[in-house]
Amino acid sequence: WGRVTGERSLIDSIPNGVVPRAKVLTIDTMNPTVKNVEYAVRGPIVARAVELEKELSEGMKKPFAEVIKANIGDAHAMGQQPITFFRQVLALCSYPELLNDSTFPEDAKSRARRILQSCGGNSMGSYSASQGIDSVRQDVARYIERRDGGVPCDPDDIYLTTGASDGIMTMLKLLVCGEGVTRTGVMISIPQYPLYSAALAELGAVQINYYLNEEKCWSLDISELQRALDEARHHCNPRALCIINPGNPTGQVQSRECIEDVIRFAAKEGLFLMADEVYQDNVYADGCQFHSFKKVLFEMGPEYSDTVELASFHSTSKCYMGECGFRGGYMEIINMDDEVKAQLTKLVSVRLCPPVPGQALMDLVVNPPQPGEPSYDNFIKERTATLSALAEKAKLTEQILNTVHGISCNPVQGAMYSFPRIIIPEKAVKEATDKGQQPDMFYCMKMLEETGICLVPGSGFGQKDGTYHFRMTILPPRDKLQILLNKVKEFHQKFTKHYS
Amino acid sequence: WGRVTGERSLIDSIPNGVVPRAKVLTIDTMNPTVKNVEYAVRGPIVARAVELEKELSEGMKKPFAEVIKANIGDAHAMGQQPITFFRQVLALCSYPELLNDSTFPEDAKSRARRILQSCGGNSMGSYSASQGIDSVRQDVARYIERRDGGVPCDPDDIYLTTGASDGIMTMLKLLVCGEGVTRTGVMISIPQYPLYSAALAELGAVQINYYLNEEKCWSLDISELQRALDEARHHCNPRALCIINPGNPTGQVQSRECIEDVIRFAAKEGLFLMADEVYQDNVYADGCQFHSFKKVLFEMGPEYSDTVELASFHSTSKCYMGECGFRGGYMEIINMDDEVKAQLTKLVSVRLCPPVPGQALMDLVVNPPQPGEPSYDNFIKERTATLSALAEKAKLTEQILNTVHGISCNPVQGAMYSFPRIIIPEKAVKEATDKGQQPDMFYCMKMLEETGICLVPGSGFGQKDGTYHFRMTILPPRDKLQILLNKVKEFHQKFTKHYS
Repeated sequence: WGRVTGERSLIDSIPNGVVPRAKVLTIDTMNPTVKNVEYAVRGPIVARAVELEKELSEGMKKPFAEVIKANIGDAHAMGQQPITFFRQVLALCSYPELLNDSTFPEDAKSRARRILQSCGGNSMGSYSASQGIDSVRQDVARYIERRDGGVPCDPDDIYLTTGASDGIMTMLKLLVCGEGVTRTGVMISIPQYPLYSAALAELGAVQINYYLNEEKCWSLDISELQRALDEARHHCNPRALCIINPGNPTGQVQSRECIEDVIRFAAKEGLFLMADEVYQDNVYADGCQFHSFKKVLFEMGPEYSDTVELASFHSTSKCYMGECGFRGGYMEIINMDDEVKAQLTKLVSVRLCPPVPGQALMDLVVNPPQPGEPSYDNFIKERTATLSALAEKAKLTEQILNTVHGISCNPVQGAMYSFPRIIIPEKAVKEATDKGQQPDMFYCMKMLEETGICLVPGSGFGQKDGTYHFRMTILPPRDKLQILLNKVKEFHQKFTKHYS
Repeated sequence: WGRVTGERSLIDSIPNGVVPRAKVLTIDTMNPTVKNVEYAVRGPIVARAVELEKELSEGMKKPFAEVIKANIGDAHAMGQQPITFFRQVLALCSYPELLNDSTFPEDAKSRARRILQSCGGNSMGSYSASQGIDSVRQDVARYIERRDGGVPCDPDDIYLTTGASDGIMTMLKLLVCGEGVTRTGVMISIPQYPLYSAALAELGAVQINYYLNEEKCWSLDISELQRALDEARHHCNPRALCIINPGNPTGQVQSRECIEDVIRFAAKEGLFLMADEVYQDNVYADGCQFHSFKKVLFEMGPEYSDTVELASFHSTSKCYMGECGFRGGYMEIINMDDEVKAQLTKLVSVRLCPPVPGQALMDLVVNPPQPGEPSYDNFIKERTATLSALAEKAKLTEQILNTVHGISCNPVQGAMYSFPRIIIPEKAVKEATDKGQQPDMFYCMKMLEETGICLVPGSGFGQKDGTYHFRMTILPPRDKLQILLNKVKEFHQKFTKHYS
């Protein structure tokens, strides 16, 4: 019986050791779905930014003194300070000897004791239950109930995750089946956060694009959902609808009415809803408010709340915490079929458990210091300072960008990014196309080389044909952000002049 | 255009709200590969153990006072203490204010400073590079060089992971392609650690079983590898060979000769080698020694070291650390095709980064206190105490189990488990079969209900037809382990008597 790959037979016919063996794993023989994965937020432009940093550190001369990575929502890397209380509790949990240290506040100690008591052998070094530590899931459930004005939450519907990305990936994995026209299709907004397209590519699911309306501040139109769905039904089996609210990269905050419409649409069309709500505390614009899909669903009455399947995702990485490195998160699962839930629990058990320090941190986020506790005032002070600064920077970003001819930026109502539209001159579009580059990648690469500012081109998130954008975080400190925005302004003017 | 699923059309013909909507996601419409996943280490027997714990805590009367979970290698949960130095550094990294605390030793502080300087904004809350923090990867490379007697290691070949499971899953994902007889097959030992079978099921790859030789202390015979491979070539495309050394669940430690033979076999047959070496410090038996696949490969000369593709895996969860909850780990990639490596880097970037506290812990494992540093003596004392206790418990387990008629246990040369063979009487086999249960699941379930001891049946790891085993960790404290083993002995005698 011969071998399946031709290459090996060839090699075998040559005396051993004379020519190098062919690789087992090559670009042609690797998993094709992995090849289809793209992830712009850490794509080629970031690789180049890292190179430039290295070149700078080696003393190479550049037209800038430092590389500023405004490509990713990495708050602490941009100088945001962690919440003192959270870090005190994490230190106590890491090294419980500190429970005897009188300089730590009592509320931090009592939180640490509660977390440690829920860990096997009172150690964060033990595996937790695969679904997450019981007491943390209980705290998450109570947090959701408070947030949603009393709508009940069952800790058994909470799964702690390794960041929100992990939960989203796991849910999509459950949903994928069929082949050809019965292959699972998943609706995602365009522009989207590229985790979604990457996950769908890896799973071999069909990506169904629905476009957000840039003219109406990136709002979601049900008629556009319907168009995308009706078209998709010709070639796949649409089964899920993903929403990011507040939006990434687009920063819009959905109205209650819009959420109701989306839920009605999902119910009518038989779609599983996935609500990515990791920016739930990041709402800045007047008149905007975060409404959770869970709350709206339950307020629409049992016709919806008893039937519509919903997974919602949260994380320790965003909001006022910005603790990306700990990879903490949770998902809440509503109306999931019991047998599927058992399969979900089994699936997550293969990875054993989410990182316990991330679980501990998630616990602190959902159970922060309360009025009357020693750390309360400082916690509120720190949280408010971070959120006010973000609100101010959201405004500043919009203002400065909109002073530039050829850049138009919607209000950054929430989240951590601006996603302005940019006019790229015809000549530049042609030069990029000749090089086989997306015009906005060409633009961002030029900006990086000339200014040291690292942004992500809009093509990495998806955009209407013929339009160009970039995503830029609002996270740098105010003064630095202002300098940054002015550099972007200058670059854009120079670029436009050069290619006009 | 009609909908693809029949169910929805049925529901649509009934007035809205009168009958509950059909679920979008059901056991019949979910991802079929997920359904095929099994993971015995956290399977039904553990679910029952958790129930029993709850019943006990609610005051229900049981024939035992506590449930002892000897099903999983969860050292801290069994009372093993963390290494003080590691936890001091983690506390310092979590709450850098402590760098001003004079009670922390200077070497802990300097390690913490080095880690924090490698983090964006000097915070563990920042994302790291997707491949892991640069300085940690450098420390890992130096550790591997020391371990392997100077064989060079390039930090660029190191990927930090979320525990070893994550790395193994990622590598398998890269390898899977083809359909039908060209579908990727992966060779795994039987008995195996069920992460492998679970991952292969989820990826839809073909599992190729090769049997370890229980009569020869669970050693690996090349003739058995050849048999398994030759048979598999009839129905799939075998591309990878997975080895666990020291073995899980079987505890054997491979000889240098055996590893050479395996490498020669992989080279001859064109197989990608995956070496799971997470128990590399857990070697107890006289005359046994850990040899890394990397070292042996390089000592075999360029004919092998320049060509054989190898991924090896390590973790913070086992050895003397037992820090499972932090989900730290790394993999080293040897001779991987450059284009594939670029794809690997892209793939891991979608998950952003492994948890930073786990990366920090991995750094400490590969760069522990050195002679002359203030924490050195205590570190050595703690490490030695843990490893000696494990060695003693490995011996004790083998001794007591082999006093039982109907149980035979190979020496626990390494790792953290015994995997004794048990004779199950015909009558019990029949009763189990009538119930649709595996006989060793039936046996373990009875033991759990009668003694509170939670073991994993051999069928969860795979075993020769007609043989039965269980896996039991050697982790409980010595006194408790002795009581546990005697309870197992009593149970086995009672069970055998009952069914004879």
